[in-house]
Amino acid sequence: MTDSNQDGAIPTDYEIAQHAEKRPITEVVEPFGLADDDLEPIGDYKAKVSFEAIERLRDQGTDDGKLILVTGMTPTPLGEGKTVTTVGLGQAFNHIDRDALIAIREPSLGPVFGVKGGAAGGGYSQVLPMEDINLHFTGDLHALTSAHNLISTMLDNHIKQGNELDIAVNWVNWPRAIDMNDRVLRETVIGLGGEVTGVPREDGFILTAASEMMAVLCLADGLEDLKTRIGRIIVAYTDDGEPVTVDDIGATDAAAILLKDALKPNVVQTIEGTPAFVHGGPFANIAHGTNSLIADEVAAHLSEYLVTEAGFGSDLGAEKFMNIVCRFGEMEPDAVTLVASVRALKYHGQEMWPPNLEELEDENVEAVERGLENLDKHVENLRKFGVPVVVALNRFPDDADAEVEAVLKHCREDLEVRAAESTVFSDGGEGGVDLAENLVDAAETESSFEPLYDLDVSIEEKIETVATEIYGADDVEYHSDAEKDIERLTEHGFDDVPICISKTFHSLSDDASRKGVPEDWTLEVNEIYPSAGAGFLVVLTADVLTLPGLPEEPAAANMELHSDGSIDGLF
Amino acid sequence: MTDSNQDGAIPTDYEIAQHAEKRPITEVVEPFGLADDDLEPIGDYKAKVSFEAIERLRDQGTDDGKLILVTGMTPTPLGEGKTVTTVGLGQAFNHIDRDALIAIREPSLGPVFGVKGGAAGGGYSQVLPMEDINLHFTGDLHALTSAHNLISTMLDNHIKQGNELDIAVNWVNWPRAIDMNDRVLRETVIGLGGEVTGVPREDGFILTAASEMMAVLCLADGLEDLKTRIGRIIVAYTDDGEPVTVDDIGATDAAAILLKDALKPNVVQTIEGTPAFVHGGPFANIAHGTNSLIADEVAAHLSEYLVTEAGFGSDLGAEKFMNIVCRFGEMEPDAVTLVASVRALKYHGQEMWPPNLEELEDENVEAVERGLENLDKHVENLRKFGVPVVVALNRFPDDADAEVEAVLKHCREDLEVRAAESTVFSDGGEGGVDLAENLVDAAETESSFEPLYDLDVSIEEKIETVATEIYGADDVEYHSDAEKDIERLTEHGFDDVPICISKTFHSLSDDASRKGVPEDWTLEVNEIYPSAGAGFLVVLTADVLTLPGLPEEPAAANMELHSDGSIDGLF
Repeated sequence: MTDSNQDGAIPTDYEIAQHAEKRPITEVVEPFGLADDDLEPIGDYKAKVSFEAIERLRDQGTDDGKLILVTGMTPTPLGEGKTVTTVGLGQAFNHIDRDALIAIREPSLGPVFGVKGGAAGGGYSQVLPMEDINLHFTGDLHALTSAHNLISTMLDNHIKQGNELDIAVNWVNWPRAIDMNDRVLRETVIGLGGEVTGVPREDGFILTAASEMMAVLCLADGLEDLKTRIGRIIVAYTDDGEPVTVDDIGATDAAAILLKDALKPNVVQTIEGTPAFVHGGPFANIAHGTNSLIADEVAAHLSEYLVTEAGFGSDLGAEKFMNIVCRFGEMEPDAVTLVASVRALKYHGQEMWPPNLEELEDENVEAVERGLENLDKHVENLRKFGVPVVVALNRFPDDADAEVEAVLKHCREDLEVRAAESTVFSDGGEGGVDLAENLVDAAETESSFEPLYDLDVSIEEKIETVATEIYGADDVEYHSDAEKDIERLTEHGFDDVPICISKTFHSLSDDASRKGVPEDWTLEVNEIYPSAGAGFLVVLTADVLTLPGLPEEPAAANMELHSDGSIDGLF
Repeated sequence: MTDSNQDGAIPTDYEIAQHAEKRPITEVVEPFGLADDDLEPIGDYKAKVSFEAIERLRDQGTDDGKLILVTGMTPTPLGEGKTVTTVGLGQAFNHIDRDALIAIREPSLGPVFGVKGGAAGGGYSQVLPMEDINLHFTGDLHALTSAHNLISTMLDNHIKQGNELDIAVNWVNWPRAIDMNDRVLRETVIGLGGEVTGVPREDGFILTAASEMMAVLCLADGLEDLKTRIGRIIVAYTDDGEPVTVDDIGATDAAAILLKDALKPNVVQTIEGTPAFVHGGPFANIAHGTNSLIADEVAAHLSEYLVTEAGFGSDLGAEKFMNIVCRFGEMEPDAVTLVASVRALKYHGQEMWPPNLEELEDENVEAVERGLENLDKHVENLRKFGVPVVVALNRFPDDADAEVEAVLKHCREDLEVRAAESTVFSDGGEGGVDLAENLVDAAETESSFEPLYDLDVSIEEKIETVATEIYGADDVEYHSDAEKDIERLTEHGFDDVPICISKTFHSLSDDASRKGVPEDWTLEVNEIYPSAGAGFLVVLTADVLTLPGLPEEPAAANMELHSDGSIDGLF
């Protein structure tokens, strides 16, 4: 979500983007060591990095740049500006003569046409060409939708053509996928129309970003690994409870063929000309919530600093980045930026639920101070991984000086954590110089990164560690299905992998209405299932909305296309 | 469908394609008057032509090249090589020192993963890069799928958010779309799961190529026209029977935004370096079955000859090209090539149904001669439009000389029609020189092109004209629904547009099992509905399969992706 709505006085993101001067992408990346031959350009301003270039960078074995992770406190539903901070920070490094690149996720069409909000940053800290990035971009999401649905098609065709594998039609775990907020597809009945059509069964659609194929794409290090991961995805169970994989239904290679170009990282530029990898975009609840590992790997090879972003707060995206992504990618963050906003602090200080965002506009230092406990807990969480933290206060134009001062003072004096104000939305990279300097400083201190749990402890112990240490729960309660899941997974040898807990992002607890740092509560686990392709166990604590709907007034209804191809209403 | 299976001795299409030398697309089109600035390149070998370039070509007002239409006799289920003939012919013109371009349709992923068959020609007459073209290409089909489904989403969201327009949930005419042969989605129930999800209703999916959005894209001459056409598409009716359009549900601009790049024609090259426009791919039953008008227009501005292809036989694609496309595009074909094959002639001569393709391999001059009546009728049909015809006998390596001779002799002596053997599959352009010379000759004779009916006659008269003159029916019978449709359409003023009859392609009649030239039959019309965006009435004579299924052994199951990105099993 962008912060384009934080100030009516400055032009819209699209207007800013339209007036920005873009350089050919080949020129943008050339100083970082990517030559023309390393790129597969799509128009002048977008390119994919070729596999040959990736191999070359791997073989060179140069030292990786410092890795800066951007995460946030528990946000309001509008988001607190993590992407804008990531983009602005990438630009800010250039203002202090440091090389930096950024890596962020690709937007999904769902939110673009639903609630007002692209995902390419905003204001003077956005990624260009924003209209391409927010629409079809380089086609990666379309490729994922196709590959996902090819597997669905092959599965139902297998059932129709005799069902040799004895797939239980009521135990299919592979819904269909669509990149559109089309809520009526959540629960459907398919295969109607008689014998010629196949076997009727209940089915549903999920957003492409929620597909395990997305998680797989974001973790694969090359085409062979992609195939291996796709092949082992569990799509159904037999009548006897044995897992049926994509390999079993013969769809692995065809699905991988549809993804062979999507796996190549995309590179574009920020409004100030910083190269930006925009690649992959998995959910941060049922998946790990960060851009592709292969983009991080390439970017880290090319620059002194890599700024990358994780979804939602430290309890979700950052926790998964540390415990899952860093483990798989053999990476270590050198510093973490925790994005906070006066708005979000007031939201926690007022224990507001459901959110009434207008009420958060008035100056209210006391509410801000009461809300600081949420920020404190996120700082504490990140320190548990042994990495230095810098709080980035993403300042909105209407924030009062007293509110901002209260936050910075608390961070520096009470928490003894580095903190800086950031105005990158309105000021571009210049507005993030203080933050960048703090991060350089932080990243130079000895980091002692360590994941929070070992892989060889039990599934329960992993869940309990995250629940108590990160979420602040007293305990974990397993519903009877979840207990059976643990038993079966342990039996099948799926217990030595990281866990990916799906929990609301509206609260540190599993109850969206509880703000600040909820106490005296127990995490309830309903179900655990393997994302065998991705390589982790998904732990469901509540129903997850994997296919959102459009609001009463969708952004789509207010868009305008002009005869010269320019657009109004895309933010 | 390619003819890649017509000879085991020569390498597969993909092998040939892999070994072909491609030139940068900018170099390929430069001699035809497209400069670097006119193109929006996607990699080195694919490009879209910019709207600015299209405007410039329009403003220049140069004479258009001669238009050659490729159509065929009633085919076997394998297809008789229309695309391969189109591609080969484009190449052949270069062998006789004439400038030529080709324009063909874009493949759909459905058949690529279903039955063995891409749609980029075959052998030494194919379009490159064939694997890109057969997979995601430039993303046009994905854009169409998204735009189509955005409209569906907006429609169901309108119903859920209060249904201000009084849309009748049992009278929604806008299914969802997918570019995959996923038969279980033909008939579904959506919107289950209670009030939060919306209103449950019956729905279904069609293949993207069957969407009216595809027809619209293929007929629009620019962004404004695209918007106008999308806006007037009828997606549902109210409880009172009033049409509800895309404009009414507020989805026009957002859908057009998703298609703004897809509308730009794609240009690639044939294996011999002839520029090839590959753009749009509507069904040839419920839609008009030819590549985009905008591609034809651009290509005709650029070259002495434009070779373009229509779907199925003269009764379907060519009839629609003459009566719909030429009318909308203000074009006139200068000559028509009618593709015939010994295999198809034997198929008709043996009155074979269901087809047993192996039986068609043995030499059988008598069966060929008996089958000629089907060819004769197609020649007669085309002559009714006042355009000169050249029969192209697409020779397969196993065809006997006596069989080939019988066909050519009959054409020249009995029908007095130009005829030539074509071996472009095995020999490339050189194999089409005789055909090209005949076409040059034919196109120089005075053409007196005229559509078959006037727009201001009644709906019934238009249907009866095509049924009796082209299909050879004695009469037309209207089921009671169709009679009501005609009444309502006439009342709404939708009667002054061309008609697009959906009929089986397996026979000249409406009965797939009847070969040759069926006599003593009546065309039965079941339903007539407006494709208001495209601008024609669709006349259904039978159930149309708008979402095919996968066969027992789908091509997808035998594909292989290698670690260097190369593919096996894509034809």
